[in-house]
Amino acid sequence: MRKIAILGIGQTSVDEHWDKSLREIGGEAAFAAMQDAGADKVDALFVGNMLAPLIDGQNQLGTFFSDWIGLWHREAIKIEAACGSGAAAFRAGLMAVASGDIESALVVGVEKMTDKAGHDVTAALATAADADYEVEQGVSFVGLNALVMQRYMFEFGWRHTDFAPFSINAHANAMHNPFARLHEKITVERFEKSSMVATPINLLDASPIGDGAAAAVIVPAEKVASMPGRPRVVVAASASATDTIAVHSRKDPLFLSAAYDSAKRCYEMANVEPKDIAVFELHDAFSIMTALSLEACGFAERGKGVRLGLDNEITPAGRVPICTRGGLKARGHPVGATGMYQIVEVAQQLRGECGKTQVDGAKIGMAQNIGGSGASIITHILKAE
Amino acid sequence: MRKIAILGIGQTSVDEHWDKSLREIGGEAAFAAMQDAGADKVDALFVGNMLAPLIDGQNQLGTFFSDWIGLWHREAIKIEAACGSGAAAFRAGLMAVASGDIESALVVGVEKMTDKAGHDVTAALATAADADYEVEQGVSFVGLNALVMQRYMFEFGWRHTDFAPFSINAHANAMHNPFARLHEKITVERFEKSSMVATPINLLDASPIGDGAAAAVIVPAEKVASMPGRPRVVVAASASATDTIAVHSRKDPLFLSAAYDSAKRCYEMANVEPKDIAVFELHDAFSIMTALSLEACGFAERGKGVRLGLDNEITPAGRVPICTRGGLKARGHPVGATGMYQIVEVAQQLRGECGKTQVDGAKIGMAQNIGGSGASIITHILKAE
Repeated sequence: MRKIAILGIGQTSVDEHWDKSLREIGGEAAFAAMQDAGADKVDALFVGNMLAPLIDGQNQLGTFFSDWIGLWHREAIKIEAACGSGAAAFRAGLMAVASGDIESALVVGVEKMTDKAGHDVTAALATAADADYEVEQGVSFVGLNALVMQRYMFEFGWRHTDFAPFSINAHANAMHNPFARLHEKITVERFEKSSMVATPINLLDASPIGDGAAAAVIVPAEKVASMPGRPRVVVAASASATDTIAVHSRKDPLFLSAAYDSAKRCYEMANVEPKDIAVFELHDAFSIMTALSLEACGFAERGKGVRLGLDNEITPAGRVPICTRGGLKARGHPVGATGMYQIVEVAQQLRGECGKTQVDGAKIGMAQNIGGSGASIITHILKAE
Repeated sequence: MRKIAILGIGQTSVDEHWDKSLREIGGEAAFAAMQDAGADKVDALFVGNMLAPLIDGQNQLGTFFSDWIGLWHREAIKIEAACGSGAAAFRAGLMAVASGDIESALVVGVEKMTDKAGHDVTAALATAADADYEVEQGVSFVGLNALVMQRYMFEFGWRHTDFAPFSINAHANAMHNPFARLHEKITVERFEKSSMVATPINLLDASPIGDGAAAAVIVPAEKVASMPGRPRVVVAASASATDTIAVHSRKDPLFLSAAYDSAKRCYEMANVEPKDIAVFELHDAFSIMTALSLEACGFAERGKGVRLGLDNEITPAGRVPICTRGGLKARGHPVGATGMYQIVEVAQQLRGECGKTQVDGAKIGMAQNIGGSGASIITHILKAE
């Protein structure tokens, strides 16, 4: 496959942007990425979004944004894979440039979620699960994750408090990310006393929703070979895999097979091993997903993911730095945008732009975006050259 | 770009499939295409759909269908470009195979629209228009097309009855297509007396919605060079273009610039001219769109598209055969599936499988799928070899 470089990146803060429309949020990230790339045109636009039809009454976000940002006449489409929409759009853009049919693409992940009441958003998010066999039975998305977390704790003997380091690390890192939704340090005590959402998931196990957009401009790597001033960030690997859509259909609901499949393919493509990954932006929608992601991707043995947090290995100075800009937990989780935030954040690490949460000498980073409860997982490995 | 062949095609009838779920309809078309291709696995699944989040409460149709049809572990995503979702998914699949990252793909366009009340469907379809600047003002999709048709009649001096041949041809051709929604011949008299929907669009200017799915299996062309028994159908060109999302933003609302742009690019890629196109499956959601499509794609001069119908040039025996399987008007318009029906139907023509509406010696065909009121248009040229 043709080698692709990330020429520019951009993002908005994740927040309750009640003063900005869907258009304005997506446009802001798009323009930031174009400016960072020094580009005034691209051949095509790929938009990752999950909820605009349900929350904003707006479909066809490809044309919606190509029109708004002035990419008239260009190709534009929307990709949806629930909370994995952002990385799915990035991968679709990669494929298009790699095919040789186009020579540049802008990928935008965007979501505006806070203009509706909470129960409407909960119902909209449930469309990621199986409508006939999960949602019809009354289960919500957090409910599904709570069942998985209960089983994990029972199976491997962990207590709820053992998950605290995941959230503490995410909140600590977000303190230094101006784009993060939450700027608030937390402690083990606060984690333990936080309000219950769905046993055993409490408020500090769960990521906050939000409005936000993140974007990147991609081009064939040979076109930026000589770019001065900062390392060239290239896509060393891209892979996507699925599991069953319903959690109850899985042989082992505690194993993220699609994370395993897509990460394995990426390791082979990039010719690296987990130990070579300097930074891993994983999909910590709930603290249980952090443990399962670390295990499925080869950073910990089955049932031992929690140990990495307890041993202080996950901080920017640790052996397996995760959520270095706050992760879903504290940067926030504007669902269809999240995958692009992860790509942008890994690129920032590889460029050495992360200040107090910079991972020293990071040359290889991985981003992993999950749609549904592990149903669709897209993994990318980026490299600084 | 790597040359791609269509190895297999499949479709369900377009109907009110109240006895079948979204899963079953999509699965039926997918299995038909896989069987026709003689394939039991593909590397990836691309699903085109517009309305499932709004009508069926189901997002993430990629994994939803990869799970249902047994493509476990494989990659699967959904593409949405309003009524252009089907062809947008086909193009995304083409790009992925052309990139060399995957070696085969199944593309399914699917829509289940008839389980909701008419006003719900009308509201859901309006999400293809501009939510802030069109829909908020109370305009529906048929309303937008009615304004365009009024202006066209005023500008170029045509009467409503002059559009009758488009609908008559579509209905006549659908008589011989077992998958068509309507099997009912119509006359000029009936066309003239049909119930008004939004002046000047009456019931026989408008395509019926429906439930349906159509699918194709695509692979690199070199893999089927020696396939026996029927001509190899290859993709000679693929292009996608956008216009403004709102009709009122266009300099000229009577010109489908995205049809022009994408068709022009396809003619160049395939090295053909309009006169070389033996069959043209265009997007006749409303009769006015037929005239505008014929003009933008170079089959008629500006304001003269209607003349092709009046001169009897659009029938299977004519100079510019269109809607040879019934078109949106009579095969039906299950919105996110329509683009894949068009691909399947052009492939059927190139294989010589269309019986009484077969275009003699058809070797080159074009399919054109429109999202919104001309906002996003995807064109493909297929060739029999």
